[in-house]
Amino acid sequence: MMQPVAGPTFLEKLTTSARRNQSWLCVGLDPEPSLIAARAGTDGVVPFLRGIIEATSDLVCCYKPNLGFFEALGPDGLQVLRRALEAVPAGIPTLADAKRGDIGNTARGYAQGLFDQLGFDAATVNPYLGGDALAPFFAYPDKGVFVLVRTSNPGAADFQQLPVALADGRRVPLFEVVAERALSWDQHGTLGLVVGATAPEAVARVRAIAPRVPLLLPGVGPQGGALEATVAAAVDERGEGAIVNASRGVLYADDPRRAAWDLRAAINAARQASTAARP
Amino acid sequence: MMQPVAGPTFLEKLTTSARRNQSWLCVGLDPEPSLIAARAGTDGVVPFLRGIIEATSDLVCCYKPNLGFFEALGPDGLQVLRRALEAVPAGIPTLADAKRGDIGNTARGYAQGLFDQLGFDAATVNPYLGGDALAPFFAYPDKGVFVLVRTSNPGAADFQQLPVALADGRRVPLFEVVAERALSWDQHGTLGLVVGATAPEAVARVRAIAPRVPLLLPGVGPQGGALEATVAAAVDERGEGAIVNASRGVLYADDPRRAAWDLRAAINAARQASTAARP
Repeated sequence: MMQPVAGPTFLEKLTTSARRNQSWLCVGLDPEPSLIAARAGTDGVVPFLRGIIEATSDLVCCYKPNLGFFEALGPDGLQVLRRALEAVPAGIPTLADAKRGDIGNTARGYAQGLFDQLGFDAATVNPYLGGDALAPFFAYPDKGVFVLVRTSNPGAADFQQLPVALADGRRVPLFEVVAERALSWDQHGTLGLVVGATAPEAVARVRAIAPRVPLLLPGVGPQGGALEATVAAAVDERGEGAIVNASRGVLYADDPRRAAWDLRAAINAARQASTAARP
Repeated sequence: MMQPVAGPTFLEKLTTSARRNQSWLCVGLDPEPSLIAARAGTDGVVPFLRGIIEATSDLVCCYKPNLGFFEALGPDGLQVLRRALEAVPAGIPTLADAKRGDIGNTARGYAQGLFDQLGFDAATVNPYLGGDALAPFFAYPDKGVFVLVRTSNPGAADFQQLPVALADGRRVPLFEVVAERALSWDQHGTLGLVVGATAPEAVARVRAIAPRVPLLLPGVGPQGGALEATVAAAVDERGEGAIVNASRGVLYADDPRRAAWDLRAAINAARQASTAARP
């Protein structure tokens, strides 16, 4: 189940690649065959993604494939994913956006599949089933575990924003309770939190709860997230720890390298403005 | 994306198989290679599961593979699953215990993968991301969508049981809010709800909220669920709609057919006691 730690941890890889590439941009590898123009069908996915990786690997801190797009390709989808990931340089960590969450042996199975079988450095997980369901992920001392806290979609209002009456008398939105409890599950310092870039005020609340935990920020670009406000709310006291994900905005740009270059620059400008503004 | 409805819906298949086999037992197909005694490794999984299916297909209403166990086998795990499911007779529906939940195009990808590519009749989904995240599943008019409400593990207390202060002044546990909202997402009558057999009082609350929706009840047996109280709380006014799942208790019994036979009898006894006791 749990591999011995043979190399750098996810967090070490992330920090190294972010500093080397001067980038907190994460490119989401979300292949939509209908959008991969000249190469229709599953066969085009591997060369398309390899091309994206080759065009951007000096501009990113991380790659984040979303497993839903690969499962949509059929039972061989995870082989497609594995072949595409062979193009990722060794120094750049990979994060499986899988949003898994299940109990006992099943949770262990998901962790094995993502970490041991597919070799990911980190994964996103869903907190609805509680701490024991995520323990098999946190048992790996070297793998990043990003807990969904406040997502970037309108449905975040359905449950994540509901006010919860806690035993200590406080009344706080559910997503803040999730962020607090997630800190208590983090036995090896491998925790990350996912907060949508569409809600900068939620990002600020989560950063206040978890001052040193990396925040993954999806929803910039097509989903309308305000980059500057989000990055300002998310960076930690060193001006780091805010991983900004872009998927469609890079993959389906006319010039993906240029799109990644511009996003990296915008993120860095927001980081500098934010740290310069501090007292 | 959405297939035209060519045959019976999940609910029709379920009701027909439950009546034909006089059974509300669902067998969970959760292969753990370490427990498949004489046939170590991935190669043994397909014949093992086919043997289970052949031994029980006249005793069940449904089969429910949990995808975590197949992903643990590696990138070919879903091919293993597909080959095993070829043994399921056409009249018995299959339910993917996948607990997926993601937004927009990703959610569509997961639904395509489970329903169109793997051919499942139903799937479990996670509600944490809200209604828009599950809409691609509810868009299929013939596929069952089982929303996690109150799970059978200790971690259910972490969030699902927390009291939520609603706008109308009520204060109810989160899982009841989930059950209520799930009803509003059910545009085609394809909704099911998942409630752990370890909490019969939660089952009764959910049945009161959703009088006509099928309830999937995991956690009987090794997880300690009380079969009689759970079934009594879950059956609808026709004495139906309570799908009792057993996995390890059947798969790794000395005699899986005998174990399934005995569980079916115990479920039917509880159904009869429950409907006989009604005014």
